[in-house]
Amino acid sequence: MLQGAAPRVFSGIQPTGIPHLGNYLGALQSWVKLQDEFSSVLYSIVDLHSITVPQDPRSLRESILDMTACLLACGIDPEKSVLFQQSQVPEHAELGWVLGCLTSMPRIRHLPQWKIKSQTQKSEGSVGLFTYPVLQTADILLYKSTHVPVGDDQLQHLELTQDTARIFNHRYGQFFPIPKTLTTTSKKIHSLRDPSAKMSKSDPQKLATVRLTDSPDEISLKFRKAVTDFTSEVTYDPEGRPGVSNLVAIHSAVTGLTPEDVVEQSRGLETAQYKLVVAEAVIEKLTPIRGEIQRLRADEGFLRVVLNQGAVRAREVAAPVYDAVCRLVGFR
Amino acid sequence: MLQGAAPRVFSGIQPTGIPHLGNYLGALQSWVKLQDEFSSVLYSIVDLHSITVPQDPRSLRESILDMTACLLACGIDPEKSVLFQQSQVPEHAELGWVLGCLTSMPRIRHLPQWKIKSQTQKSEGSVGLFTYPVLQTADILLYKSTHVPVGDDQLQHLELTQDTARIFNHRYGQFFPIPKTLTTTSKKIHSLRDPSAKMSKSDPQKLATVRLTDSPDEISLKFRKAVTDFTSEVTYDPEGRPGVSNLVAIHSAVTGLTPEDVVEQSRGLETAQYKLVVAEAVIEKLTPIRGEIQRLRADEGFLRVVLNQGAVRAREVAAPVYDAVCRLVGFR
Repeated sequence: MLQGAAPRVFSGIQPTGIPHLGNYLGALQSWVKLQDEFSSVLYSIVDLHSITVPQDPRSLRESILDMTACLLACGIDPEKSVLFQQSQVPEHAELGWVLGCLTSMPRIRHLPQWKIKSQTQKSEGSVGLFTYPVLQTADILLYKSTHVPVGDDQLQHLELTQDTARIFNHRYGQFFPIPKTLTTTSKKIHSLRDPSAKMSKSDPQKLATVRLTDSPDEISLKFRKAVTDFTSEVTYDPEGRPGVSNLVAIHSAVTGLTPEDVVEQSRGLETAQYKLVVAEAVIEKLTPIRGEIQRLRADEGFLRVVLNQGAVRAREVAAPVYDAVCRLVGFR
Repeated sequence: MLQGAAPRVFSGIQPTGIPHLGNYLGALQSWVKLQDEFSSVLYSIVDLHSITVPQDPRSLRESILDMTACLLACGIDPEKSVLFQQSQVPEHAELGWVLGCLTSMPRIRHLPQWKIKSQTQKSEGSVGLFTYPVLQTADILLYKSTHVPVGDDQLQHLELTQDTARIFNHRYGQFFPIPKTLTTTSKKIHSLRDPSAKMSKSDPQKLATVRLTDSPDEISLKFRKAVTDFTSEVTYDPEGRPGVSNLVAIHSAVTGLTPEDVVEQSRGLETAQYKLVVAEAVIEKLTPIRGEIQRLRADEGFLRVVLNQGAVRAREVAAPVYDAVCRLVGFR
């Protein structure tokens, strides 16, 4: 990292559907904490990334506002962090182009995301899907970010960012800090229908995923139907008993207790009873968030003001960085 | 094309070195004519394209001003056409990203430019070198251009632009006109050292290429040393006698006479004498341009004003087009 680079956190989330419990417990809760731990924090709704696979324009438009409401409802505070929509800050695409000219083709061809995602797309997938790790690199470096909260699946993309910062600095002189990962300590949340899979927005099984906007009845139903094993006892053994351990992990995450404490408290409960206990704890956690999402989502004007103000503040940081890049590269 | 789309010409040139006689006779002269034939004409110094291969920042900075001076000296009139630097208009990179998300990987992998250029680069070449035909597509469509003067080597890229416009229109509704090629009628100018090769800025043989800033002595020398055959007679037979025919083509282009008239006029001259005649004609054509380049190049402030004003006018066209794209895609 550059000596004395001011600490700054950057992260992004795609506006595709309502966040689920896994997103909330895995990422968003830690985003909220980071607001108090760092003096400069930026969170971006990365709509440019979401179009790397086809999107219905009407749904995308709604999803951007949904995501804004969800982030605010989860505790992202626009006074503490810069919350903004990526496409409102032109410098993301501009820096993406410049950094693409410093990235070799083999370097991104072997990233796992392309290999996985392109298989599900017609004709391999788009140029955007192939190059999006470069745009992600630009997202981070555009703010001279020093710390990036990432999940395990994004570690290789952050390595690309670090390498690209080094390549730029080597060619044009020390300029970008080398950003560090902030790995979250929270447990990974799995599908309620298949505890071997991560909980996912795009899971075709409707009962697999708990969304932040699910009603108490929906949440109860999903936990009642959660796949567990035939041992009717609450233990925490992610390898041997992934289903019930996923419930313990969720219970632990929403209450703040350790898995051991949760197991201790639940001693003597049958699994069916325990599912209701977990559902209750999740409902208690999500009910105020859900209410806040509904309240905010009804006020589209307010959400747009938040995004517009966020874009102005993001550009205040981004514009001088990109301008300096232009001078270093020789455009100015 | 969209019914009633307003005719608009777009073309671009990379700021890498001083244009040569082939550029002038092949492209720039026709650019000047197009200013009077179309009511809306945009010419861009495409610096974003030039960094797809490594550039020295200091040279790039100088080359942008060199190219501006050259274009003005050749007759590009900022009152008649919008002359601007690509990197000053953020919408190029932004639209490039959006269109990349509509372009399949196989569609650009097989373009000949990548196959040729990537072989000369370390590690195949950069992501930017691979994706630049997509940025070129954005350059053109950003202005809803209807006519694009292109050389033969760019025809496949213009087909990509046409296809991408159709894909966009198919998905989001009729929006982009399908741009047409404007093929120039002028003869291709070849290297003075190897008449089988195009005249090229990057030719390692110093005597192969006549630059617009060459002095009369340099021009004389290059024509005296021009490679021809052992028949000392002036004829026009590009297949059988490429060397002397290249001289006839140049002579014809700078005087405006047909090759037949040129040959008629030169009857009885030996090739060595004819070389001096052609050199004189080229010197006569280029001397005022060279003087004007020197005059303009000395006034960097003026060149910057021209570019800044051009960028403002380009953005006046580009911004509403990109804004409409954002609405169609679902960002707004």
